[in-house]
Amino acid sequence: MATVTDNLAQLRPDGSLRHLLTLQGLSRAQLEHLLERAQSFVRPVGTPPPMSTLLAGATVANLFTEPSTRTRVSFELAAKRLGAQVVNLEVQLSSRVKGESMLDTVFTLESLYVDAFVVRDAEAGVPGVVAAHVAPHVSVLSAGEAHVSHPTQGLLDALTIAQRKQRFAGLSVAIVGDIRHSRVARSAWHALATLGVTDLRIAAPAVLMPEAREFAGCTRHTALDPALAGADVVMMLRIQKERMGEADLPDAAGYFAAWGLTRERLKLARPDAIVMHPQPMNRGIEIASDVADGPQSVIRDQVRNGVAVRMAVLAEALTSRGGTR
Amino acid sequence: MATVTDNLAQLRPDGSLRHLLTLQGLSRAQLEHLLERAQSFVRPVGTPPPMSTLLAGATVANLFTEPSTRTRVSFELAAKRLGAQVVNLEVQLSSRVKGESMLDTVFTLESLYVDAFVVRDAEAGVPGVVAAHVAPHVSVLSAGEAHVSHPTQGLLDALTIAQRKQRFAGLSVAIVGDIRHSRVARSAWHALATLGVTDLRIAAPAVLMPEAREFAGCTRHTALDPALAGADVVMMLRIQKERMGEADLPDAAGYFAAWGLTRERLKLARPDAIVMHPQPMNRGIEIASDVADGPQSVIRDQVRNGVAVRMAVLAEALTSRGGTR
Amino acid sequence: MATVTDNLAQLRPDGSLRHLLTLQGLSRAQLEHLLERAQSFVRPVGTPPPMSTLLAGATVANLFTEPSTRTRVSFELAAKRLGAQVVNLEVQLSSRVKGESMLDTVFTLESLYVDAFVVRDAEAGVPGVVAAHVAPHVSVLSAGEAHVSHPTQGLLDALTIAQRKQRFAGLSVAIVGDIRHSRVARSAWHALATLGVTDLRIAAPAVLMPEAREFAGCTRHTALDPALAGADVVMMLRIQKERMGEADLPDAAGYFAAWGLTRERLKLARPDAIVMHPQPMNRGIEIASDVADGPQSVIRDQVRNGVAVRMAVLAEALTSRGGTR
Repeated sequence: MATVTDNLAQLRPDGSLRHLLTLQGLSRAQLEHLLERAQSFVRPVGTPPPMSTLLAGATVANLFTEPSTRTRVSFELAAKRLGAQVVNLEVQLSSRVKGESMLDTVFTLESLYVDAFVVRDAEAGVPGVVAAHVAPHVSVLSAGEAHVSHPTQGLLDALTIAQRKQRFAGLSVAIVGDIRHSRVARSAWHALATLGVTDLRIAAPAVLMPEAREFAGCTRHTALDPALAGADVVMMLRIQKERMGEADLPDAAGYFAAWGLTRERLKLARPDAIVMHPQPMNRGIEIASDVADGPQSVIRDQVRNGVAVRMAVLAEALTSRGGTR
Repeated sequence: MATVTDNLAQLRPDGSLRHLLTLQGLSRAQLEHLLERAQSFVRPVGTPPPMSTLLAGATVANLFTEPSTRTRVSFELAAKRLGAQVVNLEVQLSSRVKGESMLDTVFTLESLYVDAFVVRDAEAGVPGVVAAHVAPHVSVLSAGEAHVSHPTQGLLDALTIAQRKQRFAGLSVAIVGDIRHSRVARSAWHALATLGVTDLRIAAPAVLMPEAREFAGCTRHTALDPALAGADVVMMLRIQKERMGEADLPDAAGYFAAWGLTRERLKLARPDAIVMHPQPMNRGIEIASDVADGPQSVIRDQVRNGVAVRMAVLAEALTSRGGTR
Repeated sequence: MATVTDNLAQLRPDGSLRHLLTLQGLSRAQLEHLLERAQSFVRPVGTPPPMSTLLAGATVANLFTEPSTRTRVSFELAAKRLGAQVVNLEVQLSSRVKGESMLDTVFTLESLYVDAFVVRDAEAGVPGVVAAHVAPHVSVLSAGEAHVSHPTQGLLDALTIAQRKQRFAGLSVAIVGDIRHSRVARSAWHALATLGVTDLRIAAPAVLMPEAREFAGCTRHTALDPALAGADVVMMLRIQKERMGEADLPDAAGYFAAWGLTRERLKLARPDAIVMHPQPMNRGIEIASDVADGPQSVIRDQVRNGVAVRMAVLAEALTSRGGTR
């Protein structure tokens, strides 16, 4: 199955957002518009979340391969708080397993009046294939596609930075860890480069560094300290424990010694640098616990912003359908 | 556990529908009434589904043995769009496993004010046993019972035919495939025979043909072509892949050669014949992909009609309780 | 992980209920208040359940280690009928498995504006650890903690007794079975002793009797008959089948012969004695079927009261937050 994402029009002819499979190709104005709309859905934790009836009568299907991920709950609450009805399905969409039956499942849900599919799959290309086949009034939102893309994560990362730094131009942003396999890194790169970050650094052990043709415009570091030097934003990535001790990678203790973000190392960044992590965290491996919970951490803000971003994207996609519905 | 379905009163003394376990025994007027009510819940896909508060305050429990089937989602959305609250439970109701504890689960849910149980189980008789034990104000709706019955599927098949043909009398309907193990075929037969279809044909390899005492009034064919000749409606059934190559059945390629519905073969039917399938489909085994997606296919209509039928049945059963509640 | 429950303040400084992890330490007035509020949510089964918008805008997360327990459904319906939004997650909170990642999951949900966590875990101390770490506006309600505590069960048991006996003082209550491993017995003991029951008896085979320091004030019986003599309330506990035939315990038939509640034995209790069981029942092992379904059984009342108790506890915890939110 070829990845069709690159060629797929995410926007309707009138310029409104229909699908969200990748941030690549969205303009700065489009990203800024989504961030503004997301910001309108942010409330302090501890106050009631925003509630609306904007999507009353709409139906959102979460197609996840696992029953209870935090991303699923974030999308589920975003849809419900906009007044939509939500159904959760555990399905293996992977084309290797099921072939055309994947699309039959999608067509069935479409005939049950599903308006938006939130799709998470470990296989590259699946969200794009779904998007290429649904009816004109239906939207497909990626909730994570293999190593390729995680667009709502990229948006929530950008929103978190905007809230703390009030700008993108002139920022130094370091993304650290398993860049090679990370959809989070790729979507952050797409968002931040478009939004005007010029000093974007990726730092990883050599075997976790992406191929040279990727991450154009980023500075590459194969050691942590120079990547952190003077950074405004430090974005740590999860390292899969299974990779450790294999493929020229050190074990957990060795990884932490070389690549773990400690309080000491964080001093290399700017004093007001913020620390981000997409979660789930391996505390004591890629990040020290006191950094994760420390004053520079904005990790909980990222989660809170996630539901706002998903509300914004759902609202954008489903209320702009106009004549297509 | 004996099957009590046959002896169970699905109707209340006033003639209203209480349970729906089988279409067998329902009168033509009763079926027509359900189809009319279902038709009132049909909207074009791409427009908002019908929403109502008819079942506000009611609670529907989906008791399915698997977490995420399309039938479960269809019932779930039907109930929610009528304003009911829905809980999904994965339970093994099978009497072999649990005996009386099956009923204790039902009684517990009844005490949590559940008004309707939607039950799917691979064991014959389970929905009937549940229905025989619930309180007078509670309804039991079968969502598929072993090979015995799938009444909402039978209704949605009838509704789909009515929409396309505007009549039942005079139609030639061919049901093709694994008739022997098919609850879909049995419920279609119950519905269509009662509604006035007189030329009803079943076609299957000999080992998949039901016993002689079943499907009274149907013509039997052990080859596909004569069953298709002049048909107005061709209803293809799913063949379990596990059966293939065993028990005097050919392998997948051989099955397709002998029993698969191709464009060529479909020409044997009337030019305006419609093609139906209950899904999930084995494309390339019982049906060619270009037929499933072709102009004569009404497979997506069936899905859309399914949610309307389930809304109608839920509304009928729960709003007609009167003094029993 | 130490159990912090004992030291944790379940009440806010103003005396209102914030968490409910144990009934131990709650005053008689506090228990009576919860029972009164629960009683206001009781309706006869067969009439519509109480519905309210008291918790509109609130979000309740059910963190259960299994997908479909009846307690989960009871909490889910209680929250929905108060107008809250509910998300169900299957998570292993156990500290042995995940350590700090348990709390990261909780913090994530908190950042998604979850107002109350309903937590069930097989490991002692987990609800207390969660409660010790959540933000001031968030509540934690135990839905069963190892052998330690099951506070809503204790409340629904007390409510059931109050409905049938209109008093606690002067009642003789026998709790029978695997007391040692039973959170149900412990929470019943906490509730009933505080509410004024003075003749509280625990009856169990020697190996299932709790340590001497526990169940202060209860009479201990190692045979069933003397425990039943003159009892107003007989509360039977589930025996784990796995324990049978091991550890000095008889097999199922032997257990029933020695400890099963039969109609004959029930005659030892007062003629108007009520029979209770927390479910799921092992019919024919700890209780005879005709007793479970007999005129003295109030087992279904317990289930109905369970949803009322959970509505009361959710309403108490979330509507009394005031300045903390």
